[in-house]
Amino acid sequence: MSELRWDPLKANWAIITEGRSRRPQDFLAPREKLAVTACPFCYGREQKTPPEIYALRPDGSAPNQPGWQVRVIPNKFPALQIEGELDSRAHGLYDRMNGIGAHEIIIEHPDHQRDMADLNGAEIGEVFKAFRARMIDLRNDLRFRYLFAFKNHGIEAAVNVPHSHSQLIAVPLVPPMISTELAICREYYERKERCLICDLLHQERQEKSRVIRDDGNFLVYAPYASSFPFELRIAPLQHGHDFTAQTDQQLMALGDAMSDTLKRLRAALRDPPYSFILHTAPPIHPRKGRPEYWGSLTFDYHWHIELAPKLTKVAGFEWGTGFHMNPTPPEEAADFLRNVDLELIR
Amino acid sequence: MSELRWDPLKANWAIITEGRSRRPQDFLAPREKLAVTACPFCYGREQKTPPEIYALRPDGSAPNQPGWQVRVIPNKFPALQIEGELDSRAHGLYDRMNGIGAHEIIIEHPDHQRDMADLNGAEIGEVFKAFRARMIDLRNDLRFRYLFAFKNHGIEAAVNVPHSHSQLIAVPLVPPMISTELAICREYYERKERCLICDLLHQERQEKSRVIRDDGNFLVYAPYASSFPFELRIAPLQHGHDFTAQTDQQLMALGDAMSDTLKRLRAALRDPPYSFILHTAPPIHPRKGRPEYWGSLTFDYHWHIELAPKLTKVAGFEWGTGFHMNPTPPEEAADFLRNVDLELIR
Repeated sequence: MSELRWDPLKANWAIITEGRSRRPQDFLAPREKLAVTACPFCYGREQKTPPEIYALRPDGSAPNQPGWQVRVIPNKFPALQIEGELDSRAHGLYDRMNGIGAHEIIIEHPDHQRDMADLNGAEIGEVFKAFRARMIDLRNDLRFRYLFAFKNHGIEAAVNVPHSHSQLIAVPLVPPMISTELAICREYYERKERCLICDLLHQERQEKSRVIRDDGNFLVYAPYASSFPFELRIAPLQHGHDFTAQTDQQLMALGDAMSDTLKRLRAALRDPPYSFILHTAPPIHPRKGRPEYWGSLTFDYHWHIELAPKLTKVAGFEWGTGFHMNPTPPEEAADFLRNVDLELIR
Repeated sequence: MSELRWDPLKANWAIITEGRSRRPQDFLAPREKLAVTACPFCYGREQKTPPEIYALRPDGSAPNQPGWQVRVIPNKFPALQIEGELDSRAHGLYDRMNGIGAHEIIIEHPDHQRDMADLNGAEIGEVFKAFRARMIDLRNDLRFRYLFAFKNHGIEAAVNVPHSHSQLIAVPLVPPMISTELAICREYYERKERCLICDLLHQERQEKSRVIRDDGNFLVYAPYASSFPFELRIAPLQHGHDFTAQTDQQLMALGDAMSDTLKRLRAALRDPPYSFILHTAPPIHPRKGRPEYWGSLTFDYHWHIELAPKLTKVAGFEWGTGFHMNPTPPEEAADFLRNVDLELIR
């Protein structure tokens, strides 16, 4: 029997279907590879990109030269432009504003051959430190209402430069997916004086059936109402609304959790395309005479990462309803990922 | 400059990007074709499917034999099951219910070689009459809160049987996409005593720049805040909340609009994968002591069809924000589709 499951954080149902593909081997497919000559993200081609705005250079080398371990540059082909005013106005019944924002690329490692799943926890921790540094800088720009950090992997996840990288997009609005979560967490806190996500993590740790990894710092689990097969969340057990307030030590622990998770996914699903997204509170700054507005909304939020491999095709049903059909119950996904033999693929 | 545009019907922004692909030729790609032997939807294989629940048989032939023009069958591999109780209950902080529903297949034409874009207006009108008949029947089942009719075309839109068909799924909940629209239309009507969609259609007809076709019955236009390149809406100019209340004549006129639209899309974009979705009011029936509930919500709604070719890859940004990046301004999409030379491809 198929099952409909409710996610209180998303205020939405997922449909866990039965009788269709559900095990990892049902999702194996040849993964397209991008061929590339003269990769602009490799050592020695730093002049082919816009000048760097952040770099980790353990050898103390000069900017825009080889020697970096992590490097952040503006996207040469940004979806949103950094210069200009919003010029927000009505167009009849519609509204419009200029596409103002920032669009940055975080090159995660110099080695063209190493995907994020090849990096160890400390290396991925440095990527998260780059996220943090850039978010702390970008939040000074009062035009930006949200800083959206994410990674796509694989052609099917819209990647067009194969050298492993993440992205950071600053947008002049809080995205609806995030504002829904903020409002839900706020309402829950007002009613119970507890954080919804803390309570969800507590239930997941008690039930154990959907937990892949619990190291006392971060919980990696397949959410009860997973919309996608092998969808995962990585959340800190310690409550905190703001990713940018995390210590180096916490980001290194997050790197460990991410490194282990990506290795498990790659082993179970043979290098699946995937995306992950950092969910954190919006920057707090004055907003047209309501300086308290975001501050009051955000402390009851709980930052986390959402990750999903791209294994199923989304079409009319999902587009029109907002419901997703997921053929793999999260309990089964967690079981597969817990029991992956990591040695086999090293 | 990129532009953010607000759709008052969806309460969401779309990002119209600049400097990336935007013209039809930028989206041309080899379209994968499904090979099939012994298609279960062809004449002579009626016994391979579950027994038909509706058929148009101009020759008066017996059920489950050749001779039909349109044939509706239960999906042999349904996403939701028709038998059973909902058994709705809590699971800690989560909720769950059984996946109760109906999942039907509308085989649009006996000819395996003809896609919906090959059908004329009267033939597509008969498909819409089948939608109407099945929705009128299914709304008698009080477990179903919404009847969701849609069509996917092409492998990229998750089609796995190539013989042209649509789908009808009855779900035990009003999907969030629909309930958002219902609430927005309701609120608008309460404030202005006018229908929001009537007002939007009026603005589109005045501006003309996004209109592809206006025959006095149906308006075919590219919405101002299109999330996808070449996204379209087909809406009746005469207000009506309920697709099932439409006359044969209106459904034939809708068939004409759809036939012309699909021919234009196929000519401009070389047989793109696409989905279309019927947006209509939920069935009105008593709901746990609130018999007036849906009735009061729905008369201010305005049924229509939403259609989008699947030309861009959706990944982390769209999944995490709910915003879509659309490289083709709707004014340009409408211009291309208006000026397609239909003769060239007949």
